[in-house]
Amino acid sequence: MSTLFLKTLREDPADAELAGHRLLVRAGYVRRTGSGTYAWLPLGHRVCRRVEAVVREEMDAIGAQEVLLPALAPREPYDVSGRWTDYGPNLFRLADRRGADHLLSPTHEEIMTLLVKDLCSSYKDLPLSLYQIQTKFRDEARPRGGLLRTREFIMKDSYSFDVDDAGLDASYAAHRAAYVRIFDRLGLPVVAVAADSGAMGGSASEEFLHPSPHGEDTYVATDAGYAANVEAVTTPVPRALDDQQVSALAPAHVEDTPETPTIETLVAVVNERFPRDGAAWTAADTLKNVLVTLVHPGGDREPLVVGLPGDRDVDPKRLESAVAPALVEPFEAEDFAKHPALVRGYIGPGVLGSERASGIRYLLDPRVVAGTSWITGADEPGRHVIDLVAGRDFPAAGQDGCDGTIEAATILDGDPAPDGSGPLHAARGMEMAHVFQLGRKYADALGLQVLDANGKLVTVTMGSYGIGVGRAVAALAESGADETGLRWPRAVAPADVHVVLAGKDDAVRAAAESLCAELVAAGVEVLYDDRARVSPGVKFKDAELIGVPTIVTVGRGVADGVVEVRDRSVGGDEARTDVALADAAQHLTALVDG
Amino acid sequence: MSTLFLKTLREDPADAELAGHRLLVRAGYVRRTGSGTYAWLPLGHRVCRRVEAVVREEMDAIGAQEVLLPALAPREPYDVSGRWTDYGPNLFRLADRRGADHLLSPTHEEIMTLLVKDLCSSYKDLPLSLYQIQTKFRDEARPRGGLLRTREFIMKDSYSFDVDDAGLDASYAAHRAAYVRIFDRLGLPVVAVAADSGAMGGSASEEFLHPSPHGEDTYVATDAGYAANVEAVTTPVPRALDDQQVSALAPAHVEDTPETPTIETLVAVVNERFPRDGAAWTAADTLKNVLVTLVHPGGDREPLVVGLPGDRDVDPKRLESAVAPALVEPFEAEDFAKHPALVRGYIGPGVLGSERASGIRYLLDPRVVAGTSWITGADEPGRHVIDLVAGRDFPAAGQDGCDGTIEAATILDGDPAPDGSGPLHAARGMEMAHVFQLGRKYADALGLQVLDANGKLVTVTMGSYGIGVGRAVAALAESGADETGLRWPRAVAPADVHVVLAGKDDAVRAAAESLCAELVAAGVEVLYDDRARVSPGVKFKDAELIGVPTIVTVGRGVADGVVEVRDRSVGGDEARTDVALADAAQHLTALVDG
Repeated sequence: MSTLFLKTLREDPADAELAGHRLLVRAGYVRRTGSGTYAWLPLGHRVCRRVEAVVREEMDAIGAQEVLLPALAPREPYDVSGRWTDYGPNLFRLADRRGADHLLSPTHEEIMTLLVKDLCSSYKDLPLSLYQIQTKFRDEARPRGGLLRTREFIMKDSYSFDVDDAGLDASYAAHRAAYVRIFDRLGLPVVAVAADSGAMGGSASEEFLHPSPHGEDTYVATDAGYAANVEAVTTPVPRALDDQQVSALAPAHVEDTPETPTIETLVAVVNERFPRDGAAWTAADTLKNVLVTLVHPGGDREPLVVGLPGDRDVDPKRLESAVAPALVEPFEAEDFAKHPALVRGYIGPGVLGSERASGIRYLLDPRVVAGTSWITGADEPGRHVIDLVAGRDFPAAGQDGCDGTIEAATILDGDPAPDGSGPLHAARGMEMAHVFQLGRKYADALGLQVLDANGKLVTVTMGSYGIGVGRAVAALAESGADETGLRWPRAVAPADVHVVLAGKDDAVRAAAESLCAELVAAGVEVLYDDRARVSPGVKFKDAELIGVPTIVTVGRGVADGVVEVRDRSVGGDEARTDVALADAAQHLTALVDG
Repeated sequence: MSTLFLKTLREDPADAELAGHRLLVRAGYVRRTGSGTYAWLPLGHRVCRRVEAVVREEMDAIGAQEVLLPALAPREPYDVSGRWTDYGPNLFRLADRRGADHLLSPTHEEIMTLLVKDLCSSYKDLPLSLYQIQTKFRDEARPRGGLLRTREFIMKDSYSFDVDDAGLDASYAAHRAAYVRIFDRLGLPVVAVAADSGAMGGSASEEFLHPSPHGEDTYVATDAGYAANVEAVTTPVPRALDDQQVSALAPAHVEDTPETPTIETLVAVVNERFPRDGAAWTAADTLKNVLVTLVHPGGDREPLVVGLPGDRDVDPKRLESAVAPALVEPFEAEDFAKHPALVRGYIGPGVLGSERASGIRYLLDPRVVAGTSWITGADEPGRHVIDLVAGRDFPAAGQDGCDGTIEAATILDGDPAPDGSGPLHAARGMEMAHVFQLGRKYADALGLQVLDANGKLVTVTMGSYGIGVGRAVAALAESGADETGLRWPRAVAPADVHVVLAGKDDAVRAAAESLCAELVAAGVEVLYDDRARVSPGVKFKDAELIGVPTIVTVGRGVADGVVEVRDRSVGGDEARTDVALADAAQHLTALVDG
């Protein structure tokens, strides 16, 4: 440590939100070099390389083959797949000296597809899984959480190629199982949740989330084991009534409801002036119509209305996911001016829909089935309509005349899970990995076909699978952080043993150095704090901050033939044991070998 | 090999100029993905990683510490150093979603300097050497030679930081020695040549060139050990005459020399019409004035004249290097129109120079010293001046009134070396590495200072040191290529042993697989050609093409208890020996362990 490029800091960095990130900076693992970019310093680089080694071993174990593709890619194949446009502002685009458009690949589906097309022509060449551990680029809107969302990051991405669906299922299952083993070896708890495929496309995908209150991903789960990213949750559709039942419902009536610009004020007024028998009106009885503006790839702007029960809000992430690749922007005052049919605060289905007076596309929450009855805007200032029935007074979700349904409403604690496994509860997690059953999207677009066993050309079906190396390091830092510093799992620690020299006399130094030499000879990686002008107190603090799992103090005890061995993963004094100096190397080697 | 992502090709790729590159493509090591970008396939990736391992070990051995910096860098520090502009069109520039300028780092002097500035403040923190093995980007004008000049490439770059010049000398020497060991271990002959620092700046640099007729770098050397890149060769300056001697020379006289647009025609005409006593006039007696246009960073265009002996041409590389960061473009017909003082074909020192009629800057070859006498243009159509004496009739190199000298003339075989070690001869090489004594250029620009032992702030002095990993692979492929394929040195081969199964019966397959298992158990890396539907002839051809140093054929000999072991580095039958199957694993392990 007297020569190591390491400066531990006592002060937290100003911009760090998460404990793990603060500690990674303070303990000298990483250093910010720009917005959303970080340098890995020597200790951090070692942790990365150990994470990579675990990932590489498990990829090799499932027969995936390592390659390395350029980050710089020509525009053409991403145009063909649609991602040049679909990725929107998240893609780093650049022109070369001849003006030819290029991008920095966020992932490599297109290039991998072309590579396999270039070299494979027969079902005999498949199944095939290729992977790389490579630097990726994404122009994130809000780089945050230190290493959790950066604009340049190391990722292991793999791609499977199969001749049929059963092959893809097998490749996907093999990758999924490898990921479970990887996180198990890394000592990082994860939950696999059903996810939205986003701009990647494809038929199915799962995210591996590390449960953490600081995660930026919200997911929902049931006690029975269902788990899904909020973007991927589907709403169980209530039973619709038939035409006869619908027509028998109470007729709609328009009423004066002055001063009811919000759902709360509306519910209060209708309960006061138009009470119903039995239960009071609640927000769930109202149909809320939320206006937004979609910005389509290419820049076209389109107004959109989402109709949903008034006890729910539009969940921005679910909406974004539902309308991707379009982006969502607010519907502004000047937009109202362009649509005179919209009466602000009193908008209802009477004018909404591409075939109605406003001409604005109107997407309904799946709960708005035929026979549901609503209080909603009457499209006149200060008036609402009560008992407006979907499927009778306006097209219900899924009916002719309805512009479509949308999964954009917030999910509430206690909502039923789509698989019937019980009530949902919400949790937060950090995205660690994402696996996709891409299917034939890329192979179709780029013409990757092989001859099958019958000599017929078939389109290859693909999967893609990514693990963020830097994110894993960030999550491990976060999950191991305590009040004094980092605590690394043995598999990824920057060293196996941290030896602290705590004494100035020659015998103590000789004992420490001979112990280090014995450990190194036994294949143990040692971080040795040999700093001459640093007090033992500072050294202990630094050792706790750095978080190597085993800390050995070589100090006054040497006179009695003992050193102190401390288990960093445990707090307090019970973590300290004295070990005879003569046995120390053997004891520590056994500890490290588990 | 039945599952390896590998398709060997019988046909040479259309665009490959070099044998090594053709073989790397044919043997399935690399595949082009775009202009100047390549994918490393499984075999190629293994070779890269073995090269990296050698580099890493030697860097660690000199105490350099591994880090990893982002490729994406903000513009500001490169503006401060000047490289944002100086790198010209070779730099990939891009704007992020907020319009902030970024670049893809060609090397990391600026960011490393800021990182060290961020964390170091005292001479006690130095010396320090940091390195990374990282992907670099350069927008090459002419990507060529496959992996020799690509737009994205893996490089080991290191940076040394010292408090004084003696420290830099020591760091530079340590790196230089490590590089010698690296190339020695890789089995790649190199010659260290004095080089031009180019846009990198700094006081001194050397290139490590792999001598090869296919190299794009020309260098010159003497038998006594001097070696320099042509850009770095300085011309020994002849002795100048003093004023008295100069004024005693024959007077200049202007003569009609019609139809003499070239040096050859001029020499013929003056020998015919104005012969001199003793020797005939030669091209070396003429002073040739070559017009070019400089394009300065920022876009300003400036005409320039280079005056040099007529037996030499302007060497484009020497000129480019001499005028960098300006670029060189031709002086066109329309440029003549703007300078009426220039009489095309008959231009002479009479009008050249920033203080003469043309106003064009006039740089002289260092040989044009006071007292040298020339035949040159008389600035009138069809006329030349004879016996025009530098230092009497126009300002000689180095004199007042001379705009300066320039090292831009071609170097001829037999020219004297600047160090007096004898006549130079030219050779070609591939640039493998470059080491720079940067000095204080970057530390000055970016304010990297530390307190010295006396408590005084001093500016840190730096070195930078790069090795191209992909280039090393390309050069190794080129130097090992023979008519049947690649031949890898043992240190970097994609496998240690290539086992060819050459027989269909169960006993042969069992023998091959048991041999492979024994080898793997002994830590030997095996490439096993188990392909069932491929003939032995094709397998042998593939094995020669792939170039693993030891090829073992397990075939008919199994009945007699023998396998054939072949040394790929040697051609012909003497390379084949039969080895008892029972001893084969031990024999091969010993071979691999050297």
